[in-house]
Amino acid sequence: MRIEQRPDFQIHLQNLKSKDQLYLETIFNVANGHIGVRDSNPLQGNNPNYVGTPGLFVNGFYDYYPIEYGEKYTGYPENDQVINRLFDPRYIRIKVGDENSSVDFFKSETVDKNLDMQTGLLHEIFSVTTPEGKIFNLVVESFSSLASDNVYGIKYGVVPVNFDDDIEVIKMHSYINQATSSTVSDVRVNESEGHLQLDFLEGYDQPSYLITTYKSQQGAILTYNGKGFKLEYYKDENNHWGYHAKYHAKKGSQKEFEFLFSIGDVHPLVNAQMYADQYLAKLNEHIRHTSFKAELMASAQVWQTFWLHSDVEIDGDPQVQLSLRFNLFELHQSAGRNAHTSIPAKGLSGSGYGGHYFWDTEIFMLPFFIYTNPELAKKILMYRYQTLKQAQRQATQFGFNRGAMYAWRTINGYEASAYWPAGTAQIHINADIAYAIEQYYEVTGDDDFLADYGYEIIVETARFYMEWGKFTEIDGERRFVINRVTGPDEYSAIVDNNYYTNKMVKFNLRMVEKYAKRFENTDLSKRLSLSKQELAEIKEAADLMYLPFDKENNVKLQYQNFDKMNKINLSHIDTSDFPLLLHYHPLMLYRSQVNKQADTILADILFPKGYSDEELTRDFDFYEPITTHDSSLSKAIFAIAAARIGKEKQAYSFFAQAIETDIQNSHHNTSNGIHAGSLGAAWEGIFYGFAGVVNNAETFSMYPKLPSQWNSVKFRIFLYNSEYIFAIYEHEVRVSLLSGTGTTMIIAGAECELTRESPNQVIKY
Amino acid sequence: MRIEQRPDFQIHLQNLKSKDQLYLETIFNVANGHIGVRDSNPLQGNNPNYVGTPGLFVNGFYDYYPIEYGEKYTGYPENDQVINRLFDPRYIRIKVGDENSSVDFFKSETVDKNLDMQTGLLHEIFSVTTPEGKIFNLVVESFSSLASDNVYGIKYGVVPVNFDDDIEVIKMHSYINQATSSTVSDVRVNESEGHLQLDFLEGYDQPSYLITTYKSQQGAILTYNGKGFKLEYYKDENNHWGYHAKYHAKKGSQKEFEFLFSIGDVHPLVNAQMYADQYLAKLNEHIRHTSFKAELMASAQVWQTFWLHSDVEIDGDPQVQLSLRFNLFELHQSAGRNAHTSIPAKGLSGSGYGGHYFWDTEIFMLPFFIYTNPELAKKILMYRYQTLKQAQRQATQFGFNRGAMYAWRTINGYEASAYWPAGTAQIHINADIAYAIEQYYEVTGDDDFLADYGYEIIVETARFYMEWGKFTEIDGERRFVINRVTGPDEYSAIVDNNYYTNKMVKFNLRMVEKYAKRFENTDLSKRLSLSKQELAEIKEAADLMYLPFDKENNVKLQYQNFDKMNKINLSHIDTSDFPLLLHYHPLMLYRSQVNKQADTILADILFPKGYSDEELTRDFDFYEPITTHDSSLSKAIFAIAAARIGKEKQAYSFFAQAIETDIQNSHHNTSNGIHAGSLGAAWEGIFYGFAGVVNNAETFSMYPKLPSQWNSVKFRIFLYNSEYIFAIYEHEVRVSLLSGTGTTMIIAGAECELTRESPNQVIKY
Repeated sequence: MRIEQRPDFQIHLQNLKSKDQLYLETIFNVANGHIGVRDSNPLQGNNPNYVGTPGLFVNGFYDYYPIEYGEKYTGYPENDQVINRLFDPRYIRIKVGDENSSVDFFKSETVDKNLDMQTGLLHEIFSVTTPEGKIFNLVVESFSSLASDNVYGIKYGVVPVNFDDDIEVIKMHSYINQATSSTVSDVRVNESEGHLQLDFLEGYDQPSYLITTYKSQQGAILTYNGKGFKLEYYKDENNHWGYHAKYHAKKGSQKEFEFLFSIGDVHPLVNAQMYADQYLAKLNEHIRHTSFKAELMASAQVWQTFWLHSDVEIDGDPQVQLSLRFNLFELHQSAGRNAHTSIPAKGLSGSGYGGHYFWDTEIFMLPFFIYTNPELAKKILMYRYQTLKQAQRQATQFGFNRGAMYAWRTINGYEASAYWPAGTAQIHINADIAYAIEQYYEVTGDDDFLADYGYEIIVETARFYMEWGKFTEIDGERRFVINRVTGPDEYSAIVDNNYYTNKMVKFNLRMVEKYAKRFENTDLSKRLSLSKQELAEIKEAADLMYLPFDKENNVKLQYQNFDKMNKINLSHIDTSDFPLLLHYHPLMLYRSQVNKQADTILADILFPKGYSDEELTRDFDFYEPITTHDSSLSKAIFAIAAARIGKEKQAYSFFAQAIETDIQNSHHNTSNGIHAGSLGAAWEGIFYGFAGVVNNAETFSMYPKLPSQWNSVKFRIFLYNSEYIFAIYEHEVRVSLLSGTGTTMIIAGAECELTRESPNQVIKY
Repeated sequence: MRIEQRPDFQIHLQNLKSKDQLYLETIFNVANGHIGVRDSNPLQGNNPNYVGTPGLFVNGFYDYYPIEYGEKYTGYPENDQVINRLFDPRYIRIKVGDENSSVDFFKSETVDKNLDMQTGLLHEIFSVTTPEGKIFNLVVESFSSLASDNVYGIKYGVVPVNFDDDIEVIKMHSYINQATSSTVSDVRVNESEGHLQLDFLEGYDQPSYLITTYKSQQGAILTYNGKGFKLEYYKDENNHWGYHAKYHAKKGSQKEFEFLFSIGDVHPLVNAQMYADQYLAKLNEHIRHTSFKAELMASAQVWQTFWLHSDVEIDGDPQVQLSLRFNLFELHQSAGRNAHTSIPAKGLSGSGYGGHYFWDTEIFMLPFFIYTNPELAKKILMYRYQTLKQAQRQATQFGFNRGAMYAWRTINGYEASAYWPAGTAQIHINADIAYAIEQYYEVTGDDDFLADYGYEIIVETARFYMEWGKFTEIDGERRFVINRVTGPDEYSAIVDNNYYTNKMVKFNLRMVEKYAKRFENTDLSKRLSLSKQELAEIKEAADLMYLPFDKENNVKLQYQNFDKMNKINLSHIDTSDFPLLLHYHPLMLYRSQVNKQADTILADILFPKGYSDEELTRDFDFYEPITTHDSSLSKAIFAIAAARIGKEKQAYSFFAQAIETDIQNSHHNTSNGIHAGSLGAAWEGIFYGFAGVVNNAETFSMYPKLPSQWNSVKFRIFLYNSEYIFAIYEHEVRVSLLSGTGTTMIIAGAECELTRESPNQVIKY
C-alpha cells in the first residue's frame, strides 16, 4: 500500500483500554454495509478457555425464530427475525509436523492489531505456540471491500520462529452456522440461530455454496478463491472442497496465502438453482481474476473518497479526533447500500438486537449521510419505501382502515418486537421516518425522490396517526390527542400524549399539508386519493395537536401526567444498579420520573426553532437530573442542548462520553456489536451542537459554540448539490464553496452568500 | 339412598342444551374443596375420536413450569404454577371374553347422567358395545365426600345386555400424569404438565402411593380400596398392584364393584417417607373399614346441612332456580377448607387458569360464604394470612421498604402472571383482600380473627399503597394519586388513578385508621410498629385520595384520561369478533373507551352508600353501552346496578345471563372448568341486587327489588352468630330469627328489631 499511514487514522491495540476478546472482535470488525466480519481468533481451535462470537453477517440475511410468550395476545408477532451468523471466513487450520491447530491446543497470543481507517485494512500479528513448543507468527490482513460490496479479502502469512518443519495450511468451510462460545443473558441481545442450509455447488473450480434459510426462505451464494505458495484446490477425506498447501518451512521464512470471498446479494428463495447459476459465475469470475492487493487498493480508494467528504478534523483533542473517526468509519461500514437494507442497530459487527433496524437509522445516523453522502442517504431511505407495503399491511391487520404502521424493529418490514410496550407502542417510528424524508429533501432538494417515494410515505404515515389519535377537549379547548403510546424513553410506556411523539406527528401531518398543493391533480395525488376533506382534517389535527406542558415548572412535559409520577433521586441509587432496566421491574420505572434517555430534550433538538434558549435551559435543568443515560442514544443529545444554552463544560463532557461509547466500551456491551445509533449521535453532537447547525431552517444556518478544548473543527457538507467546507475557529468561521452553484446561508446570525464568483467567506462571531 | 330426589335439585343430561364431551366433563365434576374429579368416560380406551381432559385435581397441589418470555425483564416470575392433573380415578378396564377395553375400541354411549345436588351423587349409565357386538351397561356412581375431605368414592355396575361370557374387571392406576386428548390454544388456559413421580408404597394391602412433584417439592399420598364380587387385590404381569375380578356373567345380571380413594393433604416434601408413614396408615384404615354407601350417606348429610343454610328458593322461574342451585353447589364444591388453600378460578373442575387463585375469591365468591357459612369464609381468608410472608417478600423484591404485595394470580403466594400489564399491575388485589376482611368482620364480629390475622393484612396492604402512590397537586388541590396500574377492566392497562383501585385503596387505608385505636399499645401494634406519624400519613392519603370524575358527562371516570380515549361503537363490531381480546391487539383495546367488564360500576356496587340513584344511573348509562362483558364477572354486577336504579328488565336479563354462564356454556369455555367467580357473582346478583342488601352499612339493610318474574325469593343468612330467614314477596318481606340473640335491621327503610322474644317480622314495602 502506498498510502502513508497517518497515526490519527489508526485504531491500534495498544491504545485501547480494554483487551477483552469479545470487545476486540467488535472493534476490529471489517464491514461494508453488505457484509461484516468479526475479528475472531483465526485458529479458534480447542483452547478450553476459548471465548468468541466470530462470524460473518450479511445485511438483511436473517431467519425467523419463534417468539415464546408467557401469554400471547392477538397481533403479537409470531416470529423474531434474527440476522444469520454465517461461518467465520477468518478461520484457518494449520498443521506443524504432527500437530494440528483444529484438534490440538495451539496457544495464540495477539502481538499486534491495527485498523487503518484510511484504507479499511485490518493488520494483525499473532504469536502461536504448539503444544510441543513450536512457535510461529501468523500475520493476518483483512478487509471488506467498499469498491465491490460482495468482496471480503483475507491474507495469512506464516513465519516459523523456532523450528524447521512441514507446515500444512488448510482453508475449508464445510459448516454454516458459526459456533460461538459466549453465553449472554442480557435481554437486549438475541443469539437465536437461524436454520440454515449450505449446499455445495459443483462445477466452479473453487468452493461455491448456496446458503438458504429454512423459515425465511432466503438464499445467498458464497464463493471463495485462494492463492499462495503451493496452494491448491482439493477435496479432503470427508469430500469437502477447500484449499490446501503443504511445504517444508524454514525458520524465519514467510509464506503468504490470500483468499478472496465473494458473498452475493440476498434474494427470496424461489428457484435456488436458477438464482445460483445466474449470479455465481459472475462473482466467481471476479475474484478469480483479481488479487487481494488489487481489491484492497480499489477499496482503499473509496475510503479515501469517503474521508475527503466526510471527515471531521478537530484540532485540539487527539483522543476525541480518533474516537470520532472510528465512529464515522463504523457508520460507513454499517450502512446498507442496496436500497433493500438499512443500518442494523449494531451495524454488521454483531448479532445484538437481532440485526434489526430501528429509528436509530433515521434519527441518529441519517443526518451524517444526508449532509456528507446524500446518494447513500437516499438508498437508506429507499429501504423504508421498499417496506411500505408491509407497513400498510400491518396497519390493516391492526384494525385500521388506511395508512402505514412501520415496525419498531425489523429486518423484513414486519414487526419483530417481542415486548410491545417498549416496541410496537413506539409508534413515533412512523414520524421519525417522515422527518428523515423531509430532512433529506430539505438538504438535497431531490424532487424526484419526494414525488416518487417520499410523499407517499409521508401521507401513509400521517394517515395512521389520524386513525390512532382523536380530537377531544382538553382544558376547555379542542385538541388532537395521541394516547397509549411509548415515547423514545423506555423507562416510560403506554402513556398519553408523549410530547416527542406528538411534536413529531404534528410535523408529519404538516408535511402532508406542505406538499399537497404541489402534487394536486398529479397521478401521485390520484393514487393516494387525498381528498380536500382529508387534507382539512390533517391540517386541523396538526393545528390542534396537544403538546403537554408543565405550568408549575414551566417546562415541556414528557407526557400527560408525567409531573404526577414518583420522584427518584438518582444520586441515591447505587451505581451497580445501572442500567436500571436490569435491576427494577418495569412498573417501578414506569411510575417514576426517571428517563433512560433524551425524550423531550430530543424533541427540542429536532425542532430547534421557535423557542428561546431560556426555554431550553428550563427543559434541560428539569430533565437532565432525572436521566440515567442508560441508553447510548442519550448523552450526545444532551450535549447538543448543553452547547446551545452555554453549559459548555457539560456539553463537552456529555459529548466526550458519547463519542467513546464503543471505543471505551462504556456501556459494557460493545462485545455484542457497535452502537451504530450512538456513533451517529456523536457526529450530531458536533454538527448540531458545536457547529450549531439549525435543523428545519429555511436557510441553512449555524451558530457555532466551539469547545474551549478545540482550536478549530473542519468538515465538509453537501447542500443542494453544492459542496462546502467549513472551518470553525474560536471567533471565526471560514466557509468555501467547493463545487456546485452555491447558496445563501446564515452563520452566527450573519447572512452570507457563496457563489462561484465569490466562493470564500470569513465570518467573525 | 333414602333422601327423596327432588327434581329441582337434579342436573340431568337431557335438560342440558350442550352435549359436548368436554363441557359435560366440567358440569358433572364432583369435588369437595380438597379434591375434584372431572366426569370422564371411565373406559377412555382406544377410540380414535376420543376427546377428553379427564383427571383428578387436588387443591393447592401444583408444580412449577418455566414461563417463556420473548423479552424478559427484571422481576418477572420465573415460573408459572400449574395445578397437577393426576390420574383419573374413574378409569377402569373391562374385558369381555377376549376383548379388552384398554386395547380394543369399546364404543361407549351415554344413556344417562344425573347429578343429585341434594346428596352430591353423580349417577351415570353408559351403554358399551365391544368390537364383536357384545353390549353391556355400565352404571357408575361417584361422589367426593364433604364428610371426609380426603375421600372420593366410585361404584361400577356391569350388566351384560346381549351375551353370557367371562368378564374381567381391572382397576389399576400405574401412571400419574393423566393424558388428555384436547389441544387448546386459548391464552386463558394453561395445560402445562407438572413433573410428577408416583412411588408405590409397600406394606399396606391396598394400592398406596406417594405422589411427589419435582420442582415445587410437594408430596401427597393416595390410596384406594376396592370391594365387589370376586374382587381381589393382585399384582399384574408388570408388577403393578391393583384390583381384579373375573367371573362368568349372565345376560341381565348385575355385579357391582366399589372403590374408595383417599387423597391425603398436600405437604412440603421434606421427608417423603416419614410423611407417608405418618398419614397413610390412617387414611388407609379409614377407607378399609367403611363402604361406598356409608361414606356417601355421611357426605349427603353435610350437603343437607349446606342446603339448609345456603339455599336460595325462587318461586316463579324454575330454570333460574336450577341454575342458581348449580352455582351454589359448585361454589361449595370448589372452596378450599384447610386454611392453606383458596378457591381456584375454575374450582377443582379443570386446569383452566392453571388452578390459580385470583381476586375472584374475595370479591365475587366470599360474600356468599360470609353470609351463609362464616366458618368456611374464615378458612378461605386464612389462606391470605398464610401467604402474607410471600406477599411481604414480593414487596421487598419489588424495591419497597415495607408492606405486602399480594400476587395477582398464584397458588403458593408468589406471582405467577406471565403478562404483567394485566397481571402484576392489578395491584387492587391487595385492597380486595382488605375489603373482604372488613366485610367478614362486619358480618361476623369475629374479633379474634381481626386481632390475630385480619388487621395485620390490612396494615401491610395499606403500606404497600403508601409507597406506590404519592401526594401531588391536581387541579390546584393536594391529592393522593396511584399511577401506572391496571384496574379490573382488562381492556385497559397501565393507567393513572383507576377509580376502582383508588376507591378500594381509600377504603383499605381507612380500615387501618378505623381499628388503630383499638389495637393501640397492644402486642399487635408493637409488632406492626405503627407510628402516629405513619397513621397520620395514612389518614391524609385516604382523605385526599384522588377519584377521577368526568365533569362533562357527570360520571365517575374509569381512570384519568379515560374520557379522552377513542370511542368504539360496539354494535358495529361483528359478533364473531367477541371476545375482543382474541381479535384485537392490546393497543387497539387500551386506547379505546371499551370495557371487558364492570370496573367503575363494580366500585359503585361495592360502595353503595353516599351517592344517589341518579348518580348510579348516569354511571350505568355511560359504562353499560361500552362494556362487552367478555369477562364472566361482568353481567351480574351490571344486574345489581340495574336493579337498584329501577331498570328492572335489564337487571333481570343481565342476571339471567350471568347465572347461566356455565350451565349454558355461554362463554364457550366451560370445558376448561367452571367460572367460579361468575357463579358467586350470580348469587351477589340476588343478594345485593334483588334483595337489595346494602354493603358496608353499619346496620344490616336491604331494599328489595323483586323481579316481576318471581313470586318470592327466600334465603337464610348469618349475622353476628344469629341466623335469619328472609322471604321477599312483591310488597312484603318476612324475616325470622332462627338462632342467636337477634339484632336490629333496616328493611325497605323501616327499622325492625328481631329478638328471641319477637323473632318474626313482616315489613310491607
